[in-house]
Parts: sequence; structure tokens; C-alpha cells
Amino acid sequence: MSSHPFSDTIVAPATIPGTGAISIVRISGPEAFRAVDAVVQLKSGTVCEASAYTIHFGEVPDLDDVLVSVFRAPHSYTGEDSVEISCHASRYIVEELIRRLLEAGCRLAGPGEFTRRAFLNGKMDLAQAEAVADVIAATTAASHRVAYNQLRGGFSSELALLRGELVEMTSLLELELDFSEEEVEFADRSRLLDLVDRVRAHVVRLANSFKDGNAIKNGVPVAIVGATNVGKSTLLNALVGEDRAIVSDIAGTTRDTIEEVINLDGILFRFIDTAGIRETDETVEQMGIERTFRKISEAEIVIGMVDVTSPEISLFDHLKQIVSKVNFETQKLVLCLNKVDLGADSGVNKNVNMINDFVTSLDKEIITVKLAAKQGLGLPELRATLSSLESRLIPQEDSTFVTNLRHYESLRDTAASLSDARLALTSAIPADLVAEHLRQAISSLNQILGKDLIDPESVLQHIFRKHCIGK
Amino acid sequence: MSSHPFSDTIVAPATIPGTGAISIVRISGPEAFRAVDAVVQLKSGTVCEASAYTIHFGEVPDLDDVLVSVFRAPHSYTGEDSVEISCHASRYIVEELIRRLLEAGCRLAGPGEFTRRAFLNGKMDLAQAEAVADVIAATTAASHRVAYNQLRGGFSSELALLRGELVEMTSLLELELDFSEEEVEFADRSRLLDLVDRVRAHVVRLANSFKDGNAIKNGVPVAIVGATNVGKSTLLNALVGEDRAIVSDIAGTTRDTIEEVINLDGILFRFIDTAGIRETDETVEQMGIERTFRKISEAEIVIGMVDVTSPEISLFDHLKQIVSKVNFETQKLVLCLNKVDLGADSGVNKNVNMINDFVTSLDKEIITVKLAAKQGLGLPELRATLSSLESRLIPQEDSTFVTNLRHYESLRDTAASLSDARLALTSAIPADLVAEHLRQAISSLNQILGKDLIDPESVLQHIFRKHCIGK
Repeated sequence: MSSHPFSDTIVAPATIPGTGAISIVRISGPEAFRAVDAVVQLKSGTVCEASAYTIHFGEVPDLDDVLVSVFRAPHSYTGEDSVEISCHASRYIVEELIRRLLEAGCRLAGPGEFTRRAFLNGKMDLAQAEAVADVIAATTAASHRVAYNQLRGGFSSELALLRGELVEMTSLLELELDFSEEEVEFADRSRLLDLVDRVRAHVVRLANSFKDGNAIKNGVPVAIVGATNVGKSTLLNALVGEDRAIVSDIAGTTRDTIEEVINLDGILFRFIDTAGIRETDETVEQMGIERTFRKISEAEIVIGMVDVTSPEISLFDHLKQIVSKVNFETQKLVLCLNKVDLGADSGVNKNVNMINDFVTSLDKEIITVKLAAKQGLGLPELRATLSSLESRLIPQEDSTFVTNLRHYESLRDTAASLSDARLALTSAIPADLVAEHLRQAISSLNQILGKDLIDPESVLQHIFRKHCIGK
Repeated sequence: MSSHPFSDTIVAPATIPGTGAISIVRISGPEAFRAVDAVVQLKSGTVCEASAYTIHFGEVPDLDDVLVSVFRAPHSYTGEDSVEISCHASRYIVEELIRRLLEAGCRLAGPGEFTRRAFLNGKMDLAQAEAVADVIAATTAASHRVAYNQLRGGFSSELALLRGELVEMTSLLELELDFSEEEVEFADRSRLLDLVDRVRAHVVRLANSFKDGNAIKNGVPVAIVGATNVGKSTLLNALVGEDRAIVSDIAGTTRDTIEEVINLDGILFRFIDTAGIRETDETVEQMGIERTFRKISEAEIVIGMVDVTSPEISLFDHLKQIVSKVNFETQKLVLCLNKVDLGADSGVNKNVNMINDFVTSLDKEIITVKLAAKQGLGLPELRATLSSLESRLIPQEDSTFVTNLRHYESLRDTAASLSDARLALTSAIPADLVAEHLRQAISSLNQILGKDLIDPESVLQHIFRKHCIGK
């Protein structure tokens, strides 16, 4: 998409004022330089005269001493004339500075509006623009790598290659149509079929990466299940607590915990709230049980926990309960034998042997880990087990993961159109119908990159409202 | 203080990662350029070769695309070679970037360490360095103006003038000492006395501004008192709620409420927690009552609240209770007649007349305001009353307020030394003793500016540990 001149100039804080040492206020648009000149008195010269990529000391009268960074169109983030003002990180200063810039003719930017302009001015495609928010939100090496690859255009160029092949096929078919009365075949049908199959396989592979991509981005869902008092909360706190200590290594960082998430070897694990599971031991309403079971069914990994000091009969009951909750087709079971510290006494040893026999008899893929959650024994082994189960989620140099539902849906549409094209090719249906299916597949890929959007305004609104102000 | 070369290079985030669109990582010290070159691959050239005040596009391999701003000693915040790296506001990226910079030889900066270097390198005096934290924390026009005046050296130059006069006096006296055997008097004693009185009056005026300065910085302490159920919480919520709406005008700003504070016409009012006052109506332990009374005695303004729909007898009791809690020497009473909306009926009118008569009979300065707190009636009048009571706190162009306890104590020391000097002058005590008192006064002023600190390390530690990381 080519340059898209906006008539208005936008302003927003690019950092949250009131935190840290420095705040940045961003201005972009045709009047950016004049607006800043109206508000900031540079030590020498004006922003209008300043060269691109230079920094200037200035004063906002009675407000603050600031640094002004100058970016000239088209070599800026948005592609427009842009300025970044660096001031003290005071909420008062930032609000007053923005107030003066609004008075000087700027408009307060909406969420993601700078990135939206970057997209509309052709500085990045839509998949890249979407990756900006993902890069900022990424908290693990894996989620960062996937988002950063997408931001740098890795995903886009993969799609562009596929798109290029489809475009070439379509042109050949369309050439035939021009000569249709002469019954010429420019495109070799069997070669076309191969090509469609190859592109479709690639598209399907990408679409199928969405499940893993989603796990990379939002965390592998894990459920801890077991009877009451076997140590489920102790285990969760121990896992989360260790991780918290690592995250807060650098003073000044804060962490908003919405769900309990831990980062193991660069992979995010998200613990599903299974608080309700405790009630399933008693007679409670069916609804509550069902809700809890549904939550467990969303897990990719089930950590089943038993207390090896329990009486043999109840232990056996607990084991059977846990196994009954696991769908071994789609879920992995890690069985934790907790409280092994409470004795190498004969009862515990007997229980452990019983459990091992039971697990062997099931002939399922079950990993057992011995724990003393309270004392922290066995935790490193459990962490290693969890991360090795999901090691495929550590992105390799050459692998792409789809992490975005919009992209996933477009890829599915592409694959469906290619299936239609294949059917048309093998059914000796006229070339113009085959071409129509291919054009449909191209159009679906275009949606991801933001080319020829069918309903541009609604797509862009949907995408950029998730961005933060100032980006 | 002249330049103070540090051998190590420090790094810290200057914004809180995980918030906003952009994060800034700051590096300062002799190895700043080399360290950044080891971590960031500029699009062209190197940081070491870059000119001062230029911005460069660069890549941190596998991590982020960044902008690098270059500042060369001595023309930087710290006075050292410095770099600011602007990256995506992702916690992962900032932590990884800092990790790589630490690997490249930097050291993580302590709180306020950049500003501490600025002070030690002579870029600002100590009063200015202290103002940095105040500027960032300022949330009202008044507190910002006071802090910014101090940051820009307004306070410092006022002190420097006073110090200059004292230095001149002392030199004249010391000149006499050199010629003491000849009994020459270079310094006219009565002129000296005038000068000491004038400087002392100025110093005392500054010291006395601390009470107001503190109110500007931390808020005017206000207590809301009254019997239970007269509407105290409703009033507080109404006042705070309106203010919150104003503060959150700019989306993306957050507010940490530790105490309830409101900003009225640029003046901060801080509501003292008088939750305990409710208990005073009942038989509770004496200690609890005393604590609450002590808190009320800290208030500068007492908002006394009565319910005009109460029976006349209990209303009269409540009035007397409120008045008994106010120290009219130091506190101002604003009497709120609440629930006036509940009828222009004869009972309410009679009560209002009774209150007015009672207030008149006291012959104290009491302001009455009619309210219907729940409906918001009378709130604008109350806000106007509060702000007009404290209008002296809106700093004028030429007025200085001391907001710092350390400065206040040094000013008091200065004033005490000048009193001693005055006594010595009028008692015909030898010139060398007078000079000694003056030197003591100069030394106390020097402490504020950070010259010749008596115990530099402990003073600096105390001051800069209150700063945030990255400043």
C-alpha cells in the first residue's frame, strides 16, 4: 500500500507517565514540527529547521527542560514528520505538555494509531503491524522470538512466496482463457495439481501451527488435579514463587499477575483455575463438577497429584479418579508422588510400588515424578519434565508459528479455496472456474498482509484497538 | 565541584518496562559507547564514531530494532559519555538488553545514580539534584512550580546571593585580622550588623516557608470530623471522585492511591484518616480516641460536618463536639451543614438558624457551607472555599518555598550561626570570633548546595536512595 497522507497531527504519551525517570511524548503528522516549535523553545534554532535524526535541548516554558528528537518523513516510524519529546516522568508535566500540544493543533491519538499510520503509509504490512503489540506483550524467549520474527517480516515473506506461486499459476490459467477459442493449454494440468498440493500443504502446516503458537503466546494450559490436601496449592506456589524471584531480578520491574503463569526454560505455562475440583469429592451440584471437568479438558498437560502417605485403598481410588479425567489422545499426564520425604517407611515404599504397577498396567504414556513439594524436593525434576514435554515450542531459526486467530482463519480459508481448486482441476472443470478458486485463495492470503482488505475500516479498528496508546 | 571521573559504566531502564509503547535503557560512563557497540549493530557506522546529539537506527540481534541516541561528555545529563536506547516496551526485551549490556562490561545502576553522577560532575548542585525526584513526583501546578524552580536553580541562586554577602563580610573581617596589630577596622560594625540582620531575616523567611512548602509538596492536611451517619464518607468520595475523573482524562494514565488526595485549583489536599473518630461516640479505649485526636490536631483545615435534619438537641451536641476539637490558633474550621436538600421544612430552617447563631456567638473565624453531599449540591462552593483558604500556596513568580527537611535544617543552622554572629558583633567580641560564626553560617548554606559536605557519602546515600532506578 502506498503513502497515505493524513491531514491531522497526532500526539500521545509513549510511556506511562508517573513511572520511571523519563517520559516520552510522541507527535506525528504534517504539523508535527510547527506544533512542537509552538510549545518548546529550543536552545538554538527550531524543529522546522532541524535535520533528521538529531537531538535538541529545549525548554517548555515554566514546565520542563526537555530533549527533542526529530524524524523527517518518510524516514520515521509512521512515515510522517515525527518528534519525540523526552521529559521528566511526571504525570503533571506529561499532561500539561500534551495539553499545550493539543492547543497547538494536535489531536490525541487513539490506541495503536501511530502503528496504524505506519501500516497505511506502507512502512509495514498488516501482519507486521499486528506483531508490534505481540512483541511488547511477549514475556518469554519463545513468545518473543515468534512475535519478533513476525515483526521483522519473516512470516510475511513466507506468505509472499506462497502468494507468488499462486499468482503465477493464475496468470497462466488466465492466459489460456484469452486464447480459449483456440483450445491452447499453457498450464500443464499435472504440474498445476502438484503446485496446488504443495502450496496447500504449506498453508495447512501454517494453520496447524496455531495451536502451538497460541500456547507459545498465551502459555501451555496446565491443570493440577488431585484429592484435597495432597499439596496442590503448595506445588503451585512453589513453582510460581521460584519464577517470581527470577522475574524480579531487575529492580523496578513489576508484574501484573492475572493468572498464575510460570516461565520454564523460555516456555510459558499457564495454570488453569481448578479450585472447583475439590468439591468433586463431595456431593455437589452436577453443574459445578461439569465446569471443572471442562476446564481440565482445556489443559494440554494434567499434573495428577497423590499423597504417598495415604492409606493404600484411598490412594488407589485417587489414582483411578485422576486417570479418568485425562484424555490421553490429546493430553499428557504427569503423575506427582507427593510427600516422599515423609519416610522411606515400608508403607510408603509399598504405595510407590503399587502406583508404579498401576501405571505400567495402564500402558499409557504417563511420567511419574517423586516430590516433596513443601520442602522443594523434586521441583527441578518436575520443571525439567514440563519443559521437555513442550520443547517443540522453542522456535527454531526456520520455523514459523501462527499466533493470531485472524491469520489462522485466513489460512483455513486459503486451504479451503485450494481444495476447491484441486477438485476443479481433477474434475476437468473449465479453467476460468479453477482460476476463480485460486484468486479466492490469493485474496485470503492478502487479508493477512492487509492488501485489498474487503472491509478495511472494520478490520483495522478490530486490530488496532488492542494496541496501547502511543504505539 | 569539578569533574569527577568515574571508572565504571552504569546501565538502567529509565522507564518501567511492560508499560506503554517505548522503553528507554540508559547507559553512562567511559565505556558507554563501546558497550553499546558490542550489543547493538547500527545500520551504518558505530556509536564510537557517532556525533553528539544524533539518533541511529540499529538492531540488537534476535531481540529488537532500536533507536540509539548519542550524548558526548561533557554535554550530557551525567556529564559523561551517555547513550539512550529506545526499544519496544517489552519486559523481556528490556531485561535481555540489559543482560547483554552487563555482559559487555556495564554495571546495573543504583537508585538515582545518574543524577548523583550529574551532581558529582558539576552539572547541577545538590539542591537541584534533589529537585529531580520532586519534579517527577509533583502532581499539582503548585508542587510542580516549586520543584521546577528548584531544579532550574532558582532556590540555589537565592542561596548563592546570601552566601556571597556572607563571604564578603567574612573576608573584610579576616582582612582586619591580618592587620590586627595595627587596630584597623575595615568593616564598619553598624553596616555589618545591618547586613547580618538582613541576611538572617531572609534565611528565617526561607526556613519558615517550609510548613507551606511541605503542604504544597505533600498536600494540605484536612480532617473531616462529625458524628456517625452525617455523610463524611459520602463527602470524601464525592470530592475524590470528581478529581479522579479529571486525572484520568488521558487514557493510559494510572493512579496509585495511597492516601486520598485531591487537587483543587492546583493545590493538593490530603485527607487524614479519621476513621477512628466514629468510635468516639461510643465507649472505646482512651488510646484509640487519643490517636484520632492527635491525627486531627495535625490537620490545617478541619471540615466539621453536621446533619441539619437531626433533632435540635443532638445537633447542638455535635456542634459543640466539633468546635472542641479545633485549635483555632493554628487550624481553620469549615462547617458543612449537610442534607439541606431534605426539605425547606421549618425544622431544618430552625436548625440552620440555630447553627448560625451558635457560630456567631463563638466569635471565631468559621466558614459555613450548605451541602447536600449525596446529590453533589454545594460541592463547588466547598471546593472554592478550600482552595481560597490556601491560595497563598500558589507560588508566585518571585517566591521560594522550602520543601525539603534537609534544607530546612540547614537554614535553621544558618540562622542560629547568624544570631551568634550578631551577638558577638554587639558584644564587642574580637573579629576572629565573629568571623568564625559567619564561616559557620556559610558552611550551613554550603550543605544545601552540596559544597564541602561534612560527611559526603552518608549525605549522598540518604538523598539518592529516594530517587528511582534509571534517574
